[in-house]
Amino acid sequence: MTFATSPTIDLRSDTVTRPDETMRAAMASAEVGDAVIDVDPTLRRLEERTAELLGLPAALWVPSGTMANVIALALHLGRGDRFLAPRDAHVLVRELGSSAWLAGGMPEPLEPDAGPGRPTPASLAKAIGPRVSDYLLLRTTLLCLENTHNAAGGAVIPPHEHAQLAATAKEAGLKVHLDGARLWNAAVALDLPVAALAVGADTVSVCFSKGLGAPVGSALAGGREFIEQARRMRQMLGGGVRQGGVLGAACLRALDNVDDLAHDHDNARRLAEGLAEIGWSVHAPQTNIVLAGVPDVPLTISRLENAGVLASPMAGKVRFVTHRDVSTPDINEALNRIKSVASQ
Amino acid sequence: MTFATSPTIDLRSDTVTRPDETMRAAMASAEVGDAVIDVDPTLRRLEERTAELLGLPAALWVPSGTMANVIALALHLGRGDRFLAPRDAHVLVRELGSSAWLAGGMPEPLEPDAGPGRPTPASLAKAIGPRVSDYLLLRTTLLCLENTHNAAGGAVIPPHEHAQLAATAKEAGLKVHLDGARLWNAAVALDLPVAALAVGADTVSVCFSKGLGAPVGSALAGGREFIEQARRMRQMLGGGVRQGGVLGAACLRALDNVDDLAHDHDNARRLAEGLAEIGWSVHAPQTNIVLAGVPDVPLTISRLENAGVLASPMAGKVRFVTHRDVSTPDINEALNRIKSVASQ
Amino acid sequence: MTFATSPTIDLRSDTVTRPDETMRAAMASAEVGDAVIDVDPTLRRLEERTAELLGLPAALWVPSGTMANVIALALHLGRGDRFLAPRDAHVLVRELGSSAWLAGGMPEPLEPDAGPGRPTPASLAKAIGPRVSDYLLLRTTLLCLENTHNAAGGAVIPPHEHAQLAATAKEAGLKVHLDGARLWNAAVALDLPVAALAVGADTVSVCFSKGLGAPVGSALAGGREFIEQARRMRQMLGGGVRQGGVLGAACLRALDNVDDLAHDHDNARRLAEGLAEIGWSVHAPQTNIVLAGVPDVPLTISRLENAGVLASPMAGKVRFVTHRDVSTPDINEALNRIKSVASQ
Amino acid sequence: MTFATSPTIDLRSDTVTRPDETMRAAMASAEVGDAVIDVDPTLRRLEERTAELLGLPAALWVPSGTMANVIALALHLGRGDRFLAPRDAHVLVRELGSSAWLAGGMPEPLEPDAGPGRPTPASLAKAIGPRVSDYLLLRTTLLCLENTHNAAGGAVIPPHEHAQLAATAKEAGLKVHLDGARLWNAAVALDLPVAALAVGADTVSVCFSKGLGAPVGSALAGGREFIEQARRMRQMLGGGVRQGGVLGAACLRALDNVDDLAHDHDNARRLAEGLAEIGWSVHAPQTNIVLAGVPDVPLTISRLENAGVLASPMAGKVRFVTHRDVSTPDINEALNRIKSVASQ
Repeated sequence: MTFATSPTIDLRSDTVTRPDETMRAAMASAEVGDAVIDVDPTLRRLEERTAELLGLPAALWVPSGTMANVIALALHLGRGDRFLAPRDAHVLVRELGSSAWLAGGMPEPLEPDAGPGRPTPASLAKAIGPRVSDYLLLRTTLLCLENTHNAAGGAVIPPHEHAQLAATAKEAGLKVHLDGARLWNAAVALDLPVAALAVGADTVSVCFSKGLGAPVGSALAGGREFIEQARRMRQMLGGGVRQGGVLGAACLRALDNVDDLAHDHDNARRLAEGLAEIGWSVHAPQTNIVLAGVPDVPLTISRLENAGVLASPMAGKVRFVTHRDVSTPDINEALNRIKSVASQ
Repeated sequence: MTFATSPTIDLRSDTVTRPDETMRAAMASAEVGDAVIDVDPTLRRLEERTAELLGLPAALWVPSGTMANVIALALHLGRGDRFLAPRDAHVLVRELGSSAWLAGGMPEPLEPDAGPGRPTPASLAKAIGPRVSDYLLLRTTLLCLENTHNAAGGAVIPPHEHAQLAATAKEAGLKVHLDGARLWNAAVALDLPVAALAVGADTVSVCFSKGLGAPVGSALAGGREFIEQARRMRQMLGGGVRQGGVLGAACLRALDNVDDLAHDHDNARRLAEGLAEIGWSVHAPQTNIVLAGVPDVPLTISRLENAGVLASPMAGKVRFVTHRDVSTPDINEALNRIKSVASQ
Repeated sequence: MTFATSPTIDLRSDTVTRPDETMRAAMASAEVGDAVIDVDPTLRRLEERTAELLGLPAALWVPSGTMANVIALALHLGRGDRFLAPRDAHVLVRELGSSAWLAGGMPEPLEPDAGPGRPTPASLAKAIGPRVSDYLLLRTTLLCLENTHNAAGGAVIPPHEHAQLAATAKEAGLKVHLDGARLWNAAVALDLPVAALAVGADTVSVCFSKGLGAPVGSALAGGREFIEQARRMRQMLGGGVRQGGVLGAACLRALDNVDDLAHDHDNARRLAEGLAEIGWSVHAPQTNIVLAGVPDVPLTISRLENAGVLASPMAGKVRFVTHRDVSTPDINEALNRIKSVASQ
Repeated sequence: MTFATSPTIDLRSDTVTRPDETMRAAMASAEVGDAVIDVDPTLRRLEERTAELLGLPAALWVPSGTMANVIALALHLGRGDRFLAPRDAHVLVRELGSSAWLAGGMPEPLEPDAGPGRPTPASLAKAIGPRVSDYLLLRTTLLCLENTHNAAGGAVIPPHEHAQLAATAKEAGLKVHLDGARLWNAAVALDLPVAALAVGADTVSVCFSKGLGAPVGSALAGGREFIEQARRMRQMLGGGVRQGGVLGAACLRALDNVDDLAHDHDNARRLAEGLAEIGWSVHAPQTNIVLAGVPDVPLTISRLENAGVLASPMAGKVRFVTHRDVSTPDINEALNRIKSVASQ
């Protein structure tokens, strides 16, 4: 057994990606300013570029995707409001209830009857229900979509489905927020510009720190007035930073990496095929996430770790995420190691 | 058509019951004090009697069942906590999201796989999941049960099922709150003392203002220290009242009405049978609530109203609730009127 | 010593007043309905009468003055808002921080430079400060007045001062909420209709359960749309009650007692004069509250209690409150007992 | 007039400092990891070093001083709690009410009777008041100190005063949080280790992004269990970042700059002397902040800006802050420009 001496292959998340030399150089030479009392020119360039990519009027840099979502929900929701999100969405299960305790909204999960992570417009309409005039009832005011859907294995919402869902929500008077932490992956998988996947959304969050490889940073995009309010809420939460341009430069550089995500998707398919060959229950990945059903998730993850492959638990399965710090040979080696575990 | 001149039969809810003469006399002669800065002797008697009936150390009068539940959830839950409740429970759908925006908890509905309004211990255990050490995840800390379950048609949780659910929750470190707004109905249906249905619950809310006929008032019962905290929270919410004994006297008098609930249950069965005879889709009621499935709920309710029968929408059906202000002849008359609508 | 056998004279608060026979009779014969899902006719009459008296479009019954204030603040204030209130106002010191944790507002006390409980318009204007465009700063959006001011010894704000303060606030874009728990006392002291003291206020809370003698009940008045929102918030907090008309009848009856407050004011003056004669440091009461400065407040209150006179601590002094359950002979007897304590 | 061609001298805040070459190099070569699901080695080194410097068991990196304070207050305070802070403290006036709406605490300002920004232990004890058993009253549970005090002109709390204040608070059962955004300046001014100024504090926040020159980053220090809870709260607020080590490296490098703050203090004295010479009303600065009283603050700031000197409004005065990006010649030039404005 030589695993102990080989480097561990980390497939827990694409958040583990480290900034490369070009990104570090960009950070080291970033033009900066005080983004709280003034303007940081690099963050401003990033914000303008992000808004443009998403086809929305304005954007705001924030330290994390969680903060982008928290701000959006806190501004969209009021007391007595209910919001809808696909079952196991990040805002429901991975943000520590901030949608409830901080934003004040009552969540309602949507069942994925159109496919993994994807409700049908019909089930959305049913969940919205009739427009309520009764003051005793919750008002459904927000739809949160997630594309790609993390806990559904990086599942992609195709643009026509997204547009139908958004239109259904808008007709019923709901706002639409799109959690686009991995919207870049969806765009690459579909060979579309990201703006095509944001149609009809009032607000969109995106992350530069996952597959694109930036160390820190996300953005929230929306209307100009909304983004001004978001800036104030960011400050309240402690997300206003000073010379954020050092991070903004890395995020801008990360936008050059969007096309590279296709390699991650190839690697995910290779990994899934390999797992299927040894009899694991896997879905065919649409992007960079592979979910594998195994009898004992914690035990399997522990054994994989001993064999030099890091994975994480997600939605009752073992999750492998491919990313730019893992090459195709790494994936082949990971499969060898996984096979050794599977044959134990 | 003589409906216009006959009195309307109000089956919207047992909350519409009006205090009778003995109750009004009790209110008029109540011994009172200032319950905020002092003690109201009648409220104190009511609180002691309620605690005793429920087999819990202490109780606190509050103006409504909603306030009892809000206080319980606000004290049981912290930021980042998740709570479980049967699908369509009152705390999920009828309390305007106060469990989220005020108490701060993230709700998760339990499917009724043991019967209407009743999850199995197995599905409860699955929803609780493994004990989480991961700081990134919600902590499931509270189970809310509801007996009888309003939106499930007054469904009763039998004592052994209740005890199993409570035990499953306690083993996993959860607290248990029982929304017992209609616990009296469950006790009468099962011919058991209410305390038998509160076993294992840390806190219990009960209402005096529904089937028992008091005009205003509910109670929250629990441990002594908890109830002291609840008194403070009641004051924060504006539920601390002065000479509450005028209401307390009515609530005490209402406790004499528990056995009368059997008539309501008989009337509900009679109503359900009559509806079945004319081909309506109804469940066999366990207590005082009849849910009827019809093609168009708002239209049916509107037609019934024109015919002199008031009903309400609930869980996508038409809900009829029997109560002490509706006699058996009233039910027969209501059936006549409903038939006239059904034959339109 | 015969105090043990004489009845205690309770001057802790006018909240200790008990409903008299006419009020109890009114409760016993009240016409009622379900005020949550329907309309309670007696509460509706009370609400209409209250709105009319205050010169505002609509009103809502609530269980307590605290809830009236909490609802008003929660609806007026948003995150990042600051509100102003006279130092030691009830909303600042007696409502357990609900203005902060529930309504979300940052309080700023106004110094009483115009007299007890009364800021000058100039100091109000200074506290409001220039209109802020800086997104990094709190926005001052609400002025809370209190008339009479409890902790300032029942001090009255004269109508021209009130109007000037309200106008100053409105010019700066603030809303104005008037905590009128004892507005009836101010009106009687000034021989004016209460509406004259509510000029310029967006919302007003009044209590029926203090000097007017109702057992339970307050109201919040304001614009029609605001009161509809308040009804929803009342439900969220658990203040929606069913046959509230039994309380509403007492509150309506209590409105007949407004003129009687003049006796309480006479008794307060008599008490203050008596205390001054024995050398206590007292202010000349404008209404029904006497504050007496003594070297050791808790010790004095304890000795008074032993002598058969109940008083309460307030703003570092001993507070005596006269009310309709204390007659002029009672006040004379109370003075005798206080003298016996003072001479110890 | 040559101002237009000379570079503007920015004295608005020490937050405008830009990372220098050594700091940028440190960022470019930082060892990093995923600080959310894993450990970032550089952030860990920074956290350990910070805890050690402050004499506390543990520390947590956060994106801003505001977030450090918000987390501390949210964990220290509960509903119905009151906290004390010196008048015009950052947590009172510059954090957009998050202490109220997010942490839930009711603020009470302490008057600076011991000197600028400094209450006496006696006035602190008076503000705390007697220990309250009354469930109807706010509980005072937290003292927030600020050293140096920004709005008081960078005023220093000497160690014996700090210790006395902390001891007074602890004796009364309060927790103590120290907002040490500029604690480094206080330590340098007093020629003491920072730990000497943190004695008795349960939690301390410090900033690396002000006078020390790091682009982004602060820390919250305290007990081990507290810091574990803080990590969870940081995640809820969206302050958990991935490869934060790129920022941590800059923060570590910034710690080498502490001694340089003495130059900023010298420059502030020089600036104050120059302002005094031309007749401006200034205090003698203890650290790096000069407050100047002028008749019209906005007009003066606007004229200064035209003359090439940036200052900011603070506590009704004009604030100048010296920092590492402003040299002694810059200060002399700034004085020349200010004189030209003053003589207009």
